[in-house]
Amino acid sequence: MLVHAYGAHAADKPLEFLQITRRTPGTHDVQIDIAFCGVCHSDLHQVRAEWEGTQFPCVPGHEIVGRVSAVGAHVSDFKIGDLVGVGCIVDSCKHCADCEAGFENYCDGMVGTYNAPTKDEPGWTLGGYSQKIVVHERFALRIRHAEDQLAAVAPLLCAGITTYSPLRHWEAGPGKKVGVVGIGGLGHMGIKLAHAMGAHVVAFTTSDSKREAAKALGADEVVVSRNPGEMAAHAQSFDFILNTVAAPHDLDAFLALLKRDGTMTLVGAPATPHPSPNVFNLITKRRSIAGSMIGGIPETQEMLDFCAEHGIVADIELIRADEINEAYERMLKGDVKYRFVIDTATLAA
Amino acid sequence: MLVHAYGAHAADKPLEFLQITRRTPGTHDVQIDIAFCGVCHSDLHQVRAEWEGTQFPCVPGHEIVGRVSAVGAHVSDFKIGDLVGVGCIVDSCKHCADCEAGFENYCDGMVGTYNAPTKDEPGWTLGGYSQKIVVHERFALRIRHAEDQLAAVAPLLCAGITTYSPLRHWEAGPGKKVGVVGIGGLGHMGIKLAHAMGAHVVAFTTSDSKREAAKALGADEVVVSRNPGEMAAHAQSFDFILNTVAAPHDLDAFLALLKRDGTMTLVGAPATPHPSPNVFNLITKRRSIAGSMIGGIPETQEMLDFCAEHGIVADIELIRADEINEAYERMLKGDVKYRFVIDTATLAA
Ligand SMILES: [Zn+2]
Ligand SMILES: [Zn+2]
Ligand SMILES: [Zn+2]
Ligand SMILES: [Zn+2]
Repeated sequence: MLVHAYGAHAADKPLEFLQITRRTPGTHDVQIDIAFCGVCHSDLHQVRAEWEGTQFPCVPGHEIVGRVSAVGAHVSDFKIGDLVGVGCIVDSCKHCADCEAGFENYCDGMVGTYNAPTKDEPGWTLGGYSQKIVVHERFALRIRHAEDQLAAVAPLLCAGITTYSPLRHWEAGPGKKVGVVGIGGLGHMGIKLAHAMGAHVVAFTTSDSKREAAKALGADEVVVSRNPGEMAAHAQSFDFILNTVAAPHDLDAFLALLKRDGTMTLVGAPATPHPSPNVFNLITKRRSIAGSMIGGIPETQEMLDFCAEHGIVADIELIRADEINEAYERMLKGDVKYRFVIDTATLAA
Repeated sequence: MLVHAYGAHAADKPLEFLQITRRTPGTHDVQIDIAFCGVCHSDLHQVRAEWEGTQFPCVPGHEIVGRVSAVGAHVSDFKIGDLVGVGCIVDSCKHCADCEAGFENYCDGMVGTYNAPTKDEPGWTLGGYSQKIVVHERFALRIRHAEDQLAAVAPLLCAGITTYSPLRHWEAGPGKKVGVVGIGGLGHMGIKLAHAMGAHVVAFTTSDSKREAAKALGADEVVVSRNPGEMAAHAQSFDFILNTVAAPHDLDAFLALLKRDGTMTLVGAPATPHPSPNVFNLITKRRSIAGSMIGGIPETQEMLDFCAEHGIVADIELIRADEINEAYERMLKGDVKYRFVIDTATLAA
């Protein structure tokens, strides 16, 4: 089946209108008419081949929401018309210890939503900047938000789960002091989620101008990380810090803010390394630096349900598909509050 | 009270015979006639001023065992003649959250056994390369080993607890695969302890010649870390890796061997930074890099009791106090199996 999409033919070419092929749904597949697709920084890195191994044409997009338009014969949990989402994962080995435990995100056979090997044409996966997608039912998520929230739900599928998973794993909640470093697509979700979990939330930003915005998102306090005095006032006080900043930066400044046994978890990997963290900061208070990648499928469903229950969606700016190249440029300047979402109806033309 | 000691008058001077002053025991103090003192790498770094702030004269030594020779009026747990030990800590604030939880090692007011500020003469603490020491009873540990094991018990007070504490905290035990990187003073204790805890122990060494020795210490397997093929065979298989190597080295090679949710804990801080670890290795399996420093007093007692019960002591080479300078040179070459211990009776002359 041919569908309209938006993607790039080369790393140095802008994204443009494309036609791509989607497979006919198999017995366990769900076919989704995509309504909206969020725009993640990963999309930009992949399509511009800033990460290794980009295959062209490349169609990014892994914050997908829409409506089921066909189901395979053995699909029982979804029916035509259901509101569903697809995140960063469209397949996995389904039988390893990680998959069995619901950690498809850590499966060595995880298949990403774009640029991952597949038997489908053209040999690699094509993402959500498109009219339709077909995925195994295991990787379709149920959306319980109201339909008029659908565009703002899309970013939950990557930005939401990427922050929810570590916040849950490291037990953000009442009585815990939680830091969120960076107030972008990921960070703004981290603040909302940590707040809804009941933690005392401190947002870290490099920009004094973001103070009020961070409080509006749910931060109890805001610290400008370039101000050593403000930082020092929080020394040794955090249970957990969620660091959403992928650009190389000084990790020690944040490690020093952790209590004994505190953890700082990185959810972004820098293109060039961070300055090497000072081991003394780890040793002297038994602190940890950890990493976390998206989340598993059961946890993603849990996150969507949590967000529906707490009325949480992303703050978004809706764009037409043909505005994506301009949106990338604005993302690079941090000029978005806080996530662009493509209205895929604009692909119909 | 004047006692004999061995120490240095300057960073570039060899250690030599000194006389130092010990305070008269206060109401809560225990005075110990030191029998043996282990020789830790920290001693060498401090006395040669490779770490900041060394005060001279400097008397190193924080692996102290001996016999109680006087007690203060309010001391009830110790009596003259008891076998006791003193490790890296001789005082702390005693009332902070860390102290209350038995984590005197993480107290901001922790007083190290040497080179730490004190009201005693000469204004900084003087360590165990001496005939006697006086400490608050809280920092004296009971030794339940047989008296003829006393020299080999000494290194438990630093090398033992420094490895025992993280092994316990990260739950080394039956069903767990535990790596120990480096087979020196710390590493040889790590292997013995992890083995006694019931873990499957893999020792990592850069030297093929240490294979048999590591097995004799209790390693189930030995991996030469310079051999990529041997390393690859253990990819994603470890629950926990205890890294005792303080010299800067490639942490990524070991991070890649951890399972999902695995932790590598560093117990040595390098003088110059390790190459910055690859964040992808953390993110892709939710791995952690942590640090750990010595252990608290209750845990040190637990470790000593565990070692007495399991017949664990260090492998040592006993030396005279006047052999310490030569011993340092041999330590730097790794020419010791696995810990030098000073027979402090040789200070009497
Ligand atoms: Zn993403
Ligand atoms: Zn799997
Ligand atoms: Zn030591
Ligand atoms: Zn304290």
